[in-house]
Amino acid sequence: MIYTKICEMLGIRLPILQGGMAHISDACLAAAVSNAGGLGIISAASGNVDLIAREIDKCFELTDKPFGVNIMLMGENIDEIAQLVADKRVAAVTTGAGNPEKYIPLWKEAGIKVIPVVASTALAKLVARSGADAVIAEGTESGGHVGELTTMALVPQVVDCVDIPVIAAGGIADGRGIVASLALGAQGVQVGTRYLLATECNISRAYKEKLLKAGDTATIVTGRRLGHPVRSIKTALWREYSRLEYTSEVTDEELEEMAKGTLRAAVVDGDTKRGCFLAGQISGLCNKEQSALEITGEMFSEAENILNGVQKWVK
Amino acid sequence: MIYTKICEMLGIRLPILQGGMAHISDACLAAAVSNAGGLGIISAASGNVDLIAREIDKCFELTDKPFGVNIMLMGENIDEIAQLVADKRVAAVTTGAGNPEKYIPLWKEAGIKVIPVVASTALAKLVARSGADAVIAEGTESGGHVGELTTMALVPQVVDCVDIPVIAAGGIADGRGIVASLALGAQGVQVGTRYLLATECNISRAYKEKLLKAGDTATIVTGRRLGHPVRSIKTALWREYSRLEYTSEVTDEELEEMAKGTLRAAVVDGDTKRGCFLAGQISGLCNKEQSALEITGEMFSEAENILNGVQKWVK
Repeated sequence: MIYTKICEMLGIRLPILQGGMAHISDACLAAAVSNAGGLGIISAASGNVDLIAREIDKCFELTDKPFGVNIMLMGENIDEIAQLVADKRVAAVTTGAGNPEKYIPLWKEAGIKVIPVVASTALAKLVARSGADAVIAEGTESGGHVGELTTMALVPQVVDCVDIPVIAAGGIADGRGIVASLALGAQGVQVGTRYLLATECNISRAYKEKLLKAGDTATIVTGRRLGHPVRSIKTALWREYSRLEYTSEVTDEELEEMAKGTLRAAVVDGDTKRGCFLAGQISGLCNKEQSALEITGEMFSEAENILNGVQKWVK
Repeated sequence: MIYTKICEMLGIRLPILQGGMAHISDACLAAAVSNAGGLGIISAASGNVDLIAREIDKCFELTDKPFGVNIMLMGENIDEIAQLVADKRVAAVTTGAGNPEKYIPLWKEAGIKVIPVVASTALAKLVARSGADAVIAEGTESGGHVGELTTMALVPQVVDCVDIPVIAAGGIADGRGIVASLALGAQGVQVGTRYLLATECNISRAYKEKLLKAGDTATIVTGRRLGHPVRSIKTALWREYSRLEYTSEVTDEELEEMAKGTLRAAVVDGDTKRGCFLAGQISGLCNKEQSALEITGEMFSEAENILNGVQKWVK
């Protein structure tokens, strides 16, 4: 059984976190991943404190295993959400879009492990100095908001610059990705895209169909011009958005308007015209719907097989 | 000792290829890498058939080990260069920018292994059907001309779609990258950026200094608007180029004019104002000048240490 410092730190059986996906990662998915031995994560991106509280309560009902909450630091009601997770004493908080320094004492006092997502060594060093327990080094191949560095380039550079455990994210959907992450120096992985295909993941049918059909070049990054690059599945709309970005035909405000409400349109309405179907480059490897337990089990059994066979690379 | 199908196929001791870097990879560098146990590669990007012939002859003088030539299929004098490498019977040809199908019978007859660089599964399948002996799956983190897929996402997807050996490229500069590549299913690696710092690499002092100083976020991709994205070290010029790409302030022709001759300005003149210093995202891990022998030896000794320690990930 693969077991690392991250398992020990979080009290989980397998060193895998489920990505905190905005408007997607709810109690159902998080509890399913936690019950499978990983760390399920509820997204707090809605900014609706009551709703998040209900999801946390529901997750406590669905699993007796540790789970976490993901907080985008540039979102709404962050102070209230920070207090909420402290009150609820979830096992871990993962954060995006900045340094959660301000909330770290509050969370630590509540016994919560703090694990920021970072896209550069500069932010990794900053959050480590602020007292983070671990970092998630997320490569640009991941779905949703992305940085520029890839997992292969980012992980070893982050490992070299901090003393806390590093979790690799971006481009990981099978056992090969797990072993590659460990080789790069990570103590665990975070997986988003493949868990979108979990039977327990409550996204629209159209979203799942898009993922099932996606090949290696199915995704596109849009929003670089506005400074908020996002990776999603190519559709006519996002190809056009991408074209417009490079022209002066539209203003920044018009581009912002084009993107508004499009994630909800994908997740809830399954609107294939307007929807923004966030997904990583590894979508091409995600070809079947399975329970979170099957996904997690399959990934680690593949990884263990690879570890048991490393002698074949040596003569 | 790490030893794979690629070693067997190419008659080399270690499964590592040196990237064919335009206007950089000459006989000195290629021979040094071949003498170190990898496969050195001469770039034919100059398009100057006499010059390339001289470099090949020189390489035969400098090493009795196998070496290869890299041919950009969209360059000049490709038919002549294709014939030249066949006449010279180099060990291998790596190709960029397309499918070398047309030349494969000629090269095979000369006993040359054909290894195209691919950035997608579509091209990988195409060249495999055309008779390629192996493919180099190169991620967007690499220096120079780049595709969109990252090494972590690309390699396993290519491995799954072809029956020939896959070599991983992009983001690899140490033993961690080698083991990660093997875990992803590759049979070897191609390394460019770190070999730029080989003592045998004849680039300007300014180029080496830029690499030595580069951190994780030191590179930028420019040229997406023109459909030829290139990764280089950020300088005032390339930041400005990047800004201009997203505006209508300049025409495509003006952008092309801005880029003309800038690689030569970096490699030969060491012109820090005008130069385009091609480099990968892994530059941040490349912090010292060493001989090609030291670079290669260090990478594989790190990789072997990782392989000998995999039991620490298991409980």
